[in-house]
Amino acid sequence: MSPAAESAQLRADATAAGTTDPAPAPTAADSPVRATARRARTAATELAPLPRTARDTALLAIADALEARVDEIVAANAEDVSRAREAGTSESIVDRLTLTPARVAAIASDVRDVVALPDPVGEVVRGGTLPNGLDLRQVRVPLGVVGIIYEARPNVTVDAAALCLKSGNAVLLRGSSSAHRSNTALVAVLRDAVAGSGLPADAVQLVPGESRDSVHELMRARGLVDVLIPRGGAALIRTVVENSSVPVIETGVGNCHIYVDERADIDRAVDIVVTAKAQRPSVCNSVETVLVHRGVADALLPKLLAALTEAGVTVHGDADWQRAGATAGVTVPEATDEDWATEYLGLHIAAAVVPDLDAAVGHIRRWSSGHTEAILTADTAAARRFVSLVDSAAVMVNASTRFTDGGQFGFGAEIGISTQKLHARGPMGLPELTSTKYVVTGDGHTRG
Amino acid sequence: MSPAAESAQLRADATAAGTTDPAPAPTAADSPVRATARRARTAATELAPLPRTARDTALLAIADALEARVDEIVAANAEDVSRAREAGTSESIVDRLTLTPARVAAIASDVRDVVALPDPVGEVVRGGTLPNGLDLRQVRVPLGVVGIIYEARPNVTVDAAALCLKSGNAVLLRGSSSAHRSNTALVAVLRDAVAGSGLPADAVQLVPGESRDSVHELMRARGLVDVLIPRGGAALIRTVVENSSVPVIETGVGNCHIYVDERADIDRAVDIVVTAKAQRPSVCNSVETVLVHRGVADALLPKLLAALTEAGVTVHGDADWQRAGATAGVTVPEATDEDWATEYLGLHIAAAVVPDLDAAVGHIRRWSSGHTEAILTADTAAARRFVSLVDSAAVMVNASTRFTDGGQFGFGAEIGISTQKLHARGPMGLPELTSTKYVVTGDGHTRG
Repeated sequence: MSPAAESAQLRADATAAGTTDPAPAPTAADSPVRATARRARTAATELAPLPRTARDTALLAIADALEARVDEIVAANAEDVSRAREAGTSESIVDRLTLTPARVAAIASDVRDVVALPDPVGEVVRGGTLPNGLDLRQVRVPLGVVGIIYEARPNVTVDAAALCLKSGNAVLLRGSSSAHRSNTALVAVLRDAVAGSGLPADAVQLVPGESRDSVHELMRARGLVDVLIPRGGAALIRTVVENSSVPVIETGVGNCHIYVDERADIDRAVDIVVTAKAQRPSVCNSVETVLVHRGVADALLPKLLAALTEAGVTVHGDADWQRAGATAGVTVPEATDEDWATEYLGLHIAAAVVPDLDAAVGHIRRWSSGHTEAILTADTAAARRFVSLVDSAAVMVNASTRFTDGGQFGFGAEIGISTQKLHARGPMGLPELTSTKYVVTGDGHTRG
Repeated sequence: MSPAAESAQLRADATAAGTTDPAPAPTAADSPVRATARRARTAATELAPLPRTARDTALLAIADALEARVDEIVAANAEDVSRAREAGTSESIVDRLTLTPARVAAIASDVRDVVALPDPVGEVVRGGTLPNGLDLRQVRVPLGVVGIIYEARPNVTVDAAALCLKSGNAVLLRGSSSAHRSNTALVAVLRDAVAGSGLPADAVQLVPGESRDSVHELMRARGLVDVLIPRGGAALIRTVVENSSVPVIETGVGNCHIYVDERADIDRAVDIVVTAKAQRPSVCNSVETVLVHRGVADALLPKLLAALTEAGVTVHGDADWQRAGATAGVTVPEATDEDWATEYLGLHIAAAVVPDLDAAVGHIRRWSSGHTEAILTADTAAARRFVSLVDSAAVMVNASTRFTDGGQFGFGAEIGISTQKLHARGPMGLPELTSTKYVVTGDGHTRG
């Protein structure tokens, strides 16, 4: 069979099997959110057996449709933007909300990049023949229904949908109300393109309702939704983690540390810390606290303080850093517990001098969000000890925290950066959007 | 450095780093459960960097101690057993609760088998050099603190502790109150052996309190406990899943199906279904429902009904099976929705005739718990379609559902069988008790 014919056959099979009883049918008692999730479940059932060609065709149709319908997308977005301005939203957030024709074209281009990525579905993770002759394979399969709860940026709507479709999943999108018109327009385009490719439109859906209640319902839809991925601020993520009976993957909160060891190269350390803070301070892998070994403090603090100040960064320091500030004529506010705990996401950094590596590790254990920590050192034993003792998603040796990123890691795409230990940890690419199943083939094998 | 010296050094390092601030210290407000979890967290921090030799030494000490202190274990168990008998507990459950010297020796032997398994900690899952020259490795690390909530069998206490220690995790054990004395005696032996090997005794702890409240507190100890694994009946698992803010791995509920396709070998089908049901009906991978293609019903039903009846199995059937029963003079109660939904774990089986494979898949989608389903067929296209459309942890082709088992799969050990899709699915061996971290090594690399 040709891939296209096989695709059509498998689609027909899935639908035929689905008609028997795809999932308990929607009941009158179903809320709009649960009804949406149930349609997603059915769509996931139809998507799962489809070959790569069917999914890639739909993704290419999405990219084309985004470009063809750019005017209606930008028009809908303009309404969100003008409402945001009326509400007094800061220009930096308005900028993140804004879609221009060039930005829509870039989003379409990103979708085409996703098409080119290797297909995670069907990959044999491990396998072999058991002593009794059974043939055992552990094969990647889609998770099923993935719920994404996210804040302002409407590009996430397309990115998340594309990554979920590529990995064979149906997606439920719950963006912020400030981007509601943009998201509605984008999802309409996505659904038309998906349906036009012969796939179920319900593979991509917006979660209805703009109130908190709809998020709460989504969090309780265990059995219909396979995983929730909140992307946004710490408060959003905490709410989802605390209240969801659907499994959650925590992402994105990055209270990242750089520890400058006694045997660090001073000039390189200044370069790494300043760029890790100032090059793009709003991202989760930017550094938030720098810890300096006492042995290099006298040499490093004046240079690092000057470079940070020149980059527009305010240093919130301990007594040593405050003394260095007084000497240099730079205001260094006292670092409090709140500073150690804070992910500034802006031009602020907390700073302390520590007596040794163990103290740095102790500080990190207490305050880190488990995203990324770095050690700068020429001492291999110190590097090895730091890597061994620090329990974070990524541990850098002589490299910036900013490298924790799916693109940088070569994954080609990223649905988020997990800071939890279950299922996925660190940048999540396509394989992290899959589960596995064991396929065991025998010849009439029985036990007993 | 010798492995032993390195182990000692790393232990000293971990402790030194730990003294700075291993975790927020216990507060006066800490409940006994939270205080226990906090001690486990500290122990996990000390365990994580230890090399294999340190963990294996402790496991061998545990095996020796179980044998040396068999008398006190059996004596404590005898109290549990006599109370269970007084309470009118069924003899099958009393049997599962009972420890004899021979059973304790078998448990010790299982611990020695765990020692011999490959170390999952430190395994490089993937790695390479990025285009910018950064060296990237994804390395297995312990999860941290694993909580196990389980029912009657005290052997789980030792099995779970051994698998957690082997994979570098601290374990919190919450057994049933009916095995409280046995578990207390066993954990005392384990802790002494662990401490005697120089590892932190708090790596193995019983959760204090016998009430439901202590389970509830454990479920809310997010941040202290990394994962909860409930092992037991469906009600226990549902309670944990619904109420836990700690990530949960669902295990063990197995409403497993065998579908006998039109082109199945009749005699082999009878053999597989009967042994999958009757050889050990109380386990989660035994079959609970058999679905038969109409095309083989006339040939199969009389033979299968006779064989099941001879094995002592009651068939709860649809109209076709009831007719077959009437013909054979065998009582076949009518199968209700409750039968399709039930994991009997005993000598009962639900049975239906279906028009085709798609109908079998539809039935399975509706009623399966996602554990294991099997197709028996000589038709490769049917096998391929069944594997593609059925979304369960394990899908068998021409083999018994009974093969879904860590031992059978060659994992050497099993902490449970996950029926969820996140993190682990199917039999969970040592790698499933780990997370990973990315270790990235550069030469002063910055971004921007």
